[in-house]
Amino acid sequence: MNAPATPARLDNETLLRALAREPTPYTPVWLMRQAGRYLPEYNATRARAGDFLTLAKTPALATEVTLQPLERYPLDAAILFSDILTVPDAMGLGLAFAAGEGPRFTRPLRDETAIARLAAPDPARELRYVLDAVREIRSALGGRVPLIGFAGSPYTLACYMVEGSGSSDWQTLKTMLYARPDLLHRILAVTARAVTDYLNAQIEAGAQAVMLFDTWGGTLSYLGYETFSLAYTRKVIGALRKEAEGRRVPCILFTKGGGQWLEAMAASGADALGLDWTTDPRVARRRVGSQVALQGNLDPMALLAPPKAVRAEARKVLDAFGGAPGHVFNLGHGISQYTAPEAVAELVDEVRTYSTKLRGVAGA
Amino acid sequence: MNAPATPARLDNETLLRALAREPTPYTPVWLMRQAGRYLPEYNATRARAGDFLTLAKTPALATEVTLQPLERYPLDAAILFSDILTVPDAMGLGLAFAAGEGPRFTRPLRDETAIARLAAPDPARELRYVLDAVREIRSALGGRVPLIGFAGSPYTLACYMVEGSGSSDWQTLKTMLYARPDLLHRILAVTARAVTDYLNAQIEAGAQAVMLFDTWGGTLSYLGYETFSLAYTRKVIGALRKEAEGRRVPCILFTKGGGQWLEAMAASGADALGLDWTTDPRVARRRVGSQVALQGNLDPMALLAPPKAVRAEARKVLDAFGGAPGHVFNLGHGISQYTAPEAVAELVDEVRTYSTKLRGVAGA
Repeated sequence: MNAPATPARLDNETLLRALAREPTPYTPVWLMRQAGRYLPEYNATRARAGDFLTLAKTPALATEVTLQPLERYPLDAAILFSDILTVPDAMGLGLAFAAGEGPRFTRPLRDETAIARLAAPDPARELRYVLDAVREIRSALGGRVPLIGFAGSPYTLACYMVEGSGSSDWQTLKTMLYARPDLLHRILAVTARAVTDYLNAQIEAGAQAVMLFDTWGGTLSYLGYETFSLAYTRKVIGALRKEAEGRRVPCILFTKGGGQWLEAMAASGADALGLDWTTDPRVARRRVGSQVALQGNLDPMALLAPPKAVRAEARKVLDAFGGAPGHVFNLGHGISQYTAPEAVAELVDEVRTYSTKLRGVAGA
Repeated sequence: MNAPATPARLDNETLLRALAREPTPYTPVWLMRQAGRYLPEYNATRARAGDFLTLAKTPALATEVTLQPLERYPLDAAILFSDILTVPDAMGLGLAFAAGEGPRFTRPLRDETAIARLAAPDPARELRYVLDAVREIRSALGGRVPLIGFAGSPYTLACYMVEGSGSSDWQTLKTMLYARPDLLHRILAVTARAVTDYLNAQIEAGAQAVMLFDTWGGTLSYLGYETFSLAYTRKVIGALRKEAEGRRVPCILFTKGGGQWLEAMAASGADALGLDWTTDPRVARRRVGSQVALQGNLDPMALLAPPKAVRAEARKVLDAFGGAPGHVFNLGHGISQYTAPEAVAELVDEVRTYSTKLRGVAGA
């Protein structure tokens, strides 16, 4: 419908080019949870905010922490500072973070009435603070690097919505899955709609790529993954805006523990797949062909090692991806709060220098 | 050295035949943690013992709980009631179970001196109570079904030995792995020796099959799995007694989350591989060929559903394995304490009746 707009200024297109599997002079790098507790400046802003939710819900503060890692490291992307649970929170489940504990919903979905009443929120109203943050971050970035928006996958959100909190075995959720799959499907259908609207609103507000975090899809059986996770993720991806500001808006799908299901994930319509550290990138590339870009896959715990080891582990990842186009360097999960900021500097430097060398060789 | 002994009486050889990939009239079934807290009679015995460790360390009580599930259900194997952490306990790390918490070592391996001093225990002395239990269970079984012995894999034991307790990210262990791999290799070498001696002692005491539980191998990177888990598991398997009482003593290797590495696991020398519920049995069979038997792989949470759903899920597993020889039905992880004993009755019955039908068809 829209006439193709002139692309907004973007000084560093490396991430977007890699996600399109186009050649780049080096492997772009960003880190899941790069704006986080390992950074003293993040902790200072969070202390000023008082608590995590205020930080996430105040666009000026979310903008501040989103930009912090970019001031320290030559990263190739910014990622919106937020939380995947803002969506169920906007659906009325009452998100709370107790000190020293993980997230908790005060009104988890436990009865049919609540599930029947569940409705997708209007992001422009109930998640306005996120869209304001996206706009403010874009403006603060001034075209330095692209901004990645994100959401939890419908299944991963449903895990928390039914269980009420994190879990080692998702007993409540799984009981519903096996005993009353109809109820879970209803939750997933509404949540898929909510996630679609939310991501499209982020794209309209200025997100230049989006990522779907399917953190718990890997706890499903191989049959359950298709039925309860991928079927809904596919629906979301199919309904996303594919272009904005005259550029492709790529979508990255990450299922932690999903290494056995890469072919099916690659057929989901995603532009790229996130890999955790259990997957051999050579095997992954063989399995998905040239259908998608790949993102990953350093074990975040490798960053707890001394600089020499950090650099050696980064090189192993780059070697495994082989310097071919279509790789975005990342961790296989969010960065640990116990990471030394200096370790990240070593990592980012090694990725830049070693991948430049590798690509010179690969291109020669 | 020993002249082939006349095989001891064994009324039900279904498990051993399936592990040898020989045809059986139905699919044998046993359940990981089948003697456990979901059984009221187990809780009664445990209450009598006072605590978990006394229960595990008193052969008469261990025998009692090992036999309890066999009184209720027509299972095709007994598994020694014990804990994988008895080995590091015998190495002097001081195992303790605080009420409501997981296991904890009072003296985890944190410094080079302690690691240098680490030595494999003499099972006949420090783990005598386990061997006594094996002998007592064998006698109580009277040849009804075979008895499975077990141990933790060297890597999984090292996880607890270094971390001191369970963990969601194994930060201490992984820091050692990346920063001081030499220390971890020393721990693994000693532990592999300890596990080998321990399993061989169980076999000599009467275990008719053994299983290696690599519960945490799946948290390693694909490179780390080979280096820190499989290399040592392979060493253990290679040094196990392969025959006792005139019969093959098969070894089952189970790496939870190891579905991406089945080819390498199948080449370890194991007779069978355990699969968790994330792995499609058809894919697994294609990947390992006829090299090994396969055991698994129902999601333990499926047992929380009503009887009809339990039976339907059991049939899906059996259909996926296709009624061919070389399948042992099991869960993909230990049974949940919240399982209703009646659900297990439904499961075991469905496995027996449906697999008998399937095998009739497959054999027709």
